[in-house]
Amino acid sequence: MSRRLFLKSSVVGAAVAITAPAVAQTRPTVKWRLVTSFPKSLDILSGAATRISQHVAALTDNNFQLQTFAAGEIVPPLQVLDAVQNGTVECGYTPSFFYVGKDPTFAFDTAIPFGLNTRQQAAWISEGGGFELMRQFYKKYNVLQFPAGNTGAQMGGWFRKEINSIDDLRGLKMRVGGLGAQILARLGTVPQQIPPGDLYPALERGTIDAAEWIGPYDDERLGLLRVAKYYYYPGWWDPCAQTNLYVNQQQWDSLPASYQAAIETACADANGWMVAAYDARSPAALRRVVAAGAILKPFSQEILSICEKMAFEHYEDIAKTNEAFRTVYEPWKTFRADILLWFSVAENSLDSFLVRSEQARRQKL
Amino acid sequence: MSRRLFLKSSVVGAAVAITAPAVAQTRPTVKWRLVTSFPKSLDILSGAATRISQHVAALTDNNFQLQTFAAGEIVPPLQVLDAVQNGTVECGYTPSFFYVGKDPTFAFDTAIPFGLNTRQQAAWISEGGGFELMRQFYKKYNVLQFPAGNTGAQMGGWFRKEINSIDDLRGLKMRVGGLGAQILARLGTVPQQIPPGDLYPALERGTIDAAEWIGPYDDERLGLLRVAKYYYYPGWWDPCAQTNLYVNQQQWDSLPASYQAAIETACADANGWMVAAYDARSPAALRRVVAAGAILKPFSQEILSICEKMAFEHYEDIAKTNEAFRTVYEPWKTFRADILLWFSVAENSLDSFLVRSEQARRQKL
Repeated sequence: MSRRLFLKSSVVGAAVAITAPAVAQTRPTVKWRLVTSFPKSLDILSGAATRISQHVAALTDNNFQLQTFAAGEIVPPLQVLDAVQNGTVECGYTPSFFYVGKDPTFAFDTAIPFGLNTRQQAAWISEGGGFELMRQFYKKYNVLQFPAGNTGAQMGGWFRKEINSIDDLRGLKMRVGGLGAQILARLGTVPQQIPPGDLYPALERGTIDAAEWIGPYDDERLGLLRVAKYYYYPGWWDPCAQTNLYVNQQQWDSLPASYQAAIETACADANGWMVAAYDARSPAALRRVVAAGAILKPFSQEILSICEKMAFEHYEDIAKTNEAFRTVYEPWKTFRADILLWFSVAENSLDSFLVRSEQARRQKL
Repeated sequence: MSRRLFLKSSVVGAAVAITAPAVAQTRPTVKWRLVTSFPKSLDILSGAATRISQHVAALTDNNFQLQTFAAGEIVPPLQVLDAVQNGTVECGYTPSFFYVGKDPTFAFDTAIPFGLNTRQQAAWISEGGGFELMRQFYKKYNVLQFPAGNTGAQMGGWFRKEINSIDDLRGLKMRVGGLGAQILARLGTVPQQIPPGDLYPALERGTIDAAEWIGPYDDERLGLLRVAKYYYYPGWWDPCAQTNLYVNQQQWDSLPASYQAAIETACADANGWMVAAYDARSPAALRRVVAAGAILKPFSQEILSICEKMAFEHYEDIAKTNEAFRTVYEPWKTFRADILLWFSVAENSLDSFLVRSEQARRQKL
């Protein structure tokens, strides 16, 4: 019922006027601006925000509308948090690890290098205490966070030369974000922050030696293959990468309960949908980049082992001086060790068998 | 706005009466019965149905209510499909592979032995054409299906003696369901259909030699450890097990669009929540059953290889004579091969590294 129609009808009788206001408040017309950190060309990342908007509209008979804006249309991609925090916009869609410069604790809400994979992250957030720990953390930013997407494990990125030992990472100028940049810096890599649209010229000119973005589906669009042919895996700094909807606290408080529920369930839907979209579209994209000349290379076990050791030394160091980080890290570390033990039983043993079996089948063809 | 209130107000003027019926229809009071295949004691499986009901209520200001019923309260656990199909109830929550006796095609909506894991299943359903293929299949059952939960990869179950070779599976009387039962029967196993509550006495008396159910969190409650100590993994017949909400076609058609959206998003939420709940609670449950004497044993690679070969022979045989099965199987098989190739790169290589690294860390302690 539109507010205008309600006002028209409510004047006719006391019985209606007494009960109608409460009814009207459950379905007010609300229009919000939803800014994202992504260009429209990254159609899964920006598509998740669109999907949230569409579901919220469908759930409320179009009474609650979230108008989405691409990166830069209202605020730059790395300022989504600030815009939501100070109320410039009501909500924003962004990976929290864009803000590790403010506090490394943000990384727990997107990706911890050598940390939880996509399912483990969802389990930690939803049923392992992670959501509550992060909600407490966000209080000082005046923001409520809602997990609303994940890329899955990412690729290690594009390199102009082979990486055969840990020494090959030293001195390397590489576009890499989040806590991965801090850990690689400890190893002597020189991390660079460059927007995705500038990666191609930076690699071509030799301003950087390597660049990681997400995986074949998005990387293909950036054209990096043409200037750096070695495509390494896994992207150990992003065993998964969760994206969040941030909502300004006061704006959230102003919503009727059913609109709050609409945001919550629309985000839960997007959280599953995004990883499904990446999983479904990456196989063909991987085939295309390999057919076009990309040379797939695994990081060696030795490199992974050294980097993992360095990663946890880094976390222990941060935890010594950063109480917010320590508060999340300690229970997270326990959760991680426990769930890895469980995944080593049924899940990973079957996954590994199926992968090996399929590889053997293809070799016979 | 309640229907009664609307009728009261709509009589007062033509302007209201003309537009109000459409408004009233968007928020009617609707009460449905949601039957499940699960007892309340299986709190994650039955909890997912409760969660769907709670979300639908929250999204509609309690105007749309799904009253949940445990297995047997209205219909027996294996008759949920029939009850929804013939309109005895409006909707039901059940794993589709309970109905492989009607048609093996149902298995694609829960679990195919050596088939897709949880994420691959979600990708196939949501973005790989699986949802549309299954929706077409369900038409003849007068039912709409909504994926709404997954257990993750299951355990191989409880055995009274060790299974060291494929010969040890021959003649074994084992509780096992879905297509796994049909494949094991080809290997000489004698599959048994026994409700979970009867498994303990059946194993104790030796009526059966082995029983699989789900994983440590649920299995622990059945007490099987006390009568069959060998706990095998992986449960290759259930690389994942999706559960669905079934909705009667005519009842669905009668819903306002926003109530349909409420069911869709509440099911999407439950689809992610259930696997998170199993993933978060299984590690402690596994530790408890091992501490209580369960002996963890992997099926050998040889056993897995023979069973996988037998499984695909079985699917090819079914596809020869069952057109509905073939229609789903052929694109599913292509999707599976493609996504296994993709998962073998970043996802499985990182998962396997992390599992090995954690096992090495524990051995040092």
